[in-house]
Amino acid sequence: MQQSHLDDLFAFIRFPSVSTEPRHKDDVAACASWLAGKLTAIGLTAHIHPTAGHPIVTARNTHQPGRKTVMIYGHYDVQPVDPVNEWTSPPFEPVIRDGIIYARGSTDNKGQILGHVLGVGETIHEKGDVPVNLIFLIEGEEEVGSKNLESFLKENRAALACDIIAISDTGMVARNTPTFTYGLRGIAAMELRVSGPAVDLHSGIYGGAVMNPATAIARIVASLHGADGRVAVAGFYDDVAPLQPWEREAWQRLPFGDTEIQAVTGVPELFGEAGYSNVERIGARPTAEVNGIWGGFQGTGSKTVIPREAFAKLTFRLVPSQRPADVVAKVRAHLEKHTPPGIRLEITDGHCGEPYATDPHSAFGKAAQRALATAFPGKELALIREGGSIPIVNTFKRILGVETLLLGLAMPECRAHAPDENFPVENFESCIRLNRALLAELGM
Amino acid sequence: MQQSHLDDLFAFIRFPSVSTEPRHKDDVAACASWLAGKLTAIGLTAHIHPTAGHPIVTARNTHQPGRKTVMIYGHYDVQPVDPVNEWTSPPFEPVIRDGIIYARGSTDNKGQILGHVLGVGETIHEKGDVPVNLIFLIEGEEEVGSKNLESFLKENRAALACDIIAISDTGMVARNTPTFTYGLRGIAAMELRVSGPAVDLHSGIYGGAVMNPATAIARIVASLHGADGRVAVAGFYDDVAPLQPWEREAWQRLPFGDTEIQAVTGVPELFGEAGYSNVERIGARPTAEVNGIWGGFQGTGSKTVIPREAFAKLTFRLVPSQRPADVVAKVRAHLEKHTPPGIRLEITDGHCGEPYATDPHSAFGKAAQRALATAFPGKELALIREGGSIPIVNTFKRILGVETLLLGLAMPECRAHAPDENFPVENFESCIRLNRALLAELGM
Repeated sequence: MQQSHLDDLFAFIRFPSVSTEPRHKDDVAACASWLAGKLTAIGLTAHIHPTAGHPIVTARNTHQPGRKTVMIYGHYDVQPVDPVNEWTSPPFEPVIRDGIIYARGSTDNKGQILGHVLGVGETIHEKGDVPVNLIFLIEGEEEVGSKNLESFLKENRAALACDIIAISDTGMVARNTPTFTYGLRGIAAMELRVSGPAVDLHSGIYGGAVMNPATAIARIVASLHGADGRVAVAGFYDDVAPLQPWEREAWQRLPFGDTEIQAVTGVPELFGEAGYSNVERIGARPTAEVNGIWGGFQGTGSKTVIPREAFAKLTFRLVPSQRPADVVAKVRAHLEKHTPPGIRLEITDGHCGEPYATDPHSAFGKAAQRALATAFPGKELALIREGGSIPIVNTFKRILGVETLLLGLAMPECRAHAPDENFPVENFESCIRLNRALLAELGM
Repeated sequence: MQQSHLDDLFAFIRFPSVSTEPRHKDDVAACASWLAGKLTAIGLTAHIHPTAGHPIVTARNTHQPGRKTVMIYGHYDVQPVDPVNEWTSPPFEPVIRDGIIYARGSTDNKGQILGHVLGVGETIHEKGDVPVNLIFLIEGEEEVGSKNLESFLKENRAALACDIIAISDTGMVARNTPTFTYGLRGIAAMELRVSGPAVDLHSGIYGGAVMNPATAIARIVASLHGADGRVAVAGFYDDVAPLQPWEREAWQRLPFGDTEIQAVTGVPELFGEAGYSNVERIGARPTAEVNGIWGGFQGTGSKTVIPREAFAKLTFRLVPSQRPADVVAKVRAHLEKHTPPGIRLEITDGHCGEPYATDPHSAFGKAAQRALATAFPGKELALIREGGSIPIVNTFKRILGVETLLLGLAMPECRAHAPDENFPVENFESCIRLNRALLAELGM
């Protein structure tokens, strides 16, 4: 590993570019400036674009006709550091322990995006240019929902026109396992409020004659699943694309399964939809999750009330070919049908994102897999679908009409969003190698 | 109404004597001191007895042989005030609007117990003494399960020996309807904690492979009832004494039924156990209620977590001849049986109280009914069983061997335990009259 590459990464990481915290606004801006400076230094033409929130940084080489245009997307903003007292070392003072870089942003996404930048720098240094028309698009609001990216894409559609997009903001299933992610789950969020009595009631004086809203929210939430772990909403699975035999077979061979999932989650026992492995449940099956539930007294001791209202926050993870609006409609009908007597139900729709799938056997997909093979010589490639959602991938498809290659280098133990976030030096090196191989493959 | 009586009540109410909240410990103690001062001022000998929790206040006249000994029990502690923003006026700043006193504790139980104190004061002022050997026993832990009262009764059995006990901490079925309560429901409380993952998990990355603790708490809570409103715990109804024909007939004639219950609760529709009227469901049928439920994210917007834990606070209202320990054992078995896979369940037992029933046709029962007739001339008397629990009534019977007369003045619209708790000035006056008539009847 070149010391100057590590110096660059440490300099990048030291900016506390926490996009959600107003007190870090200047730090986010300073980080964008440093990044634009770095992109200029390696020989690209960089711009800092102000937005209503944090700036977007772009950079490009001189585009030439007849070459493929490749966009590399990433983000330079990071998650908050709370709970800060659970960090072994200060989150914005990167240190290397046993070959692993510990710092906020190391894995999500500074290590990975800088790997691409440095890979391009190495190629330009050696060969004078990269073999494609290149666009870097690096935003500062990924951790707050990419609020201003969509309008930026719309306003700069011509300048951002490209043939393919590459993102390294997803995971590797395990160490030294090059991973090509060809699918992501979508999402549909909603919040429920149930209400009954005009005020909190004494549970002795009225209990028995009224439906308790806390019982009602429990009954409604419980109605979402059968005992077999399947979502019980009528028609929920109608549009779910079945797992292909090759996927089921390939996923069984992944170096990541029940043992690893149980270890990383810490649950006493894994549980999910009958008929599927846990990797399949996460990657290829839709879910209904309660992200929050509340109603009534939560303090110490007891308060014998029938609460007047209760709440739940729900998200549904969706897979191809489910459509969020269709799922929302089916869930609404289910919730209304399962609302007990004596209870009013209010449903507030939240954010939605389509599921995503690309064909791993397309020309670009195959090029990406060859690049991974080159960057990780002798290692078996993992072809997976991830359980999370990256809404921007659908935005790219919708606005720019382009597919995205997901070539992540974050491992489950890298603790993205958590204390002691980390990124192995070896993954940083791999990312630089991957960038060089990828642009070479895509440029052919 | 004497202004000084109202001044006394307002002073009593202004102490935020919330027994469940440690930060109010000094306020509870100050309230006890004020009360002892008032009892002394009317001519009784008062004592403040420290306990492991909040103090107990007692007072007595000079006891003379040959007279009946009557204990009047009440409590000076109050419920918490949350949600405090739903109060029309601050909960500890009593105000009168349209003849009604609004404040926390006004109806439960400060207004009623102070009515007795002031009634005794009036009698002593006029006649030098009351016609019975009197004991006031006023505790500060009724709202937290009277934790230290039992040991106090045991240690002071001789000093507290009496023939009958009177309590005004129950309800009147309607305005100007003198009410004699001959039964109360018991209670058994417990708190549940369910846990699964070691930390909050990303619901995209792991959703599908782990049981969500918020879903688990909902499923467990939902399992407590059938769709017919019956409690689904095996054996729950085994020991329930059936309603007597005379009770069902008398209760149909009460000036309080579905219309009043729906109006006072504000629910869109009443709901309860199939086969019983709402007055019967409240007075003579057991229930399972969720007083609080919570887990995961409750803030604005969304946070896509699978929470590591979730909670519920449960209370079961019991009727003769159910026994709390037996019900707790049956409920524990039910909860364990209904805990989903991948979830750890912890159950913490809370307070318990036996259901209570006394004979309305006994000598003391008849004396109480005559006192009610005197205090409310020309009004028809209601004989009822109440849905609330006053566990101390059973403790009195067990330790002191004495029956209790329940002569309450709280109306359904008085909102005990809820925001805008209130007590009509007219009921405060009635309580003073009732005390005078009751001591006269019992002293004969």
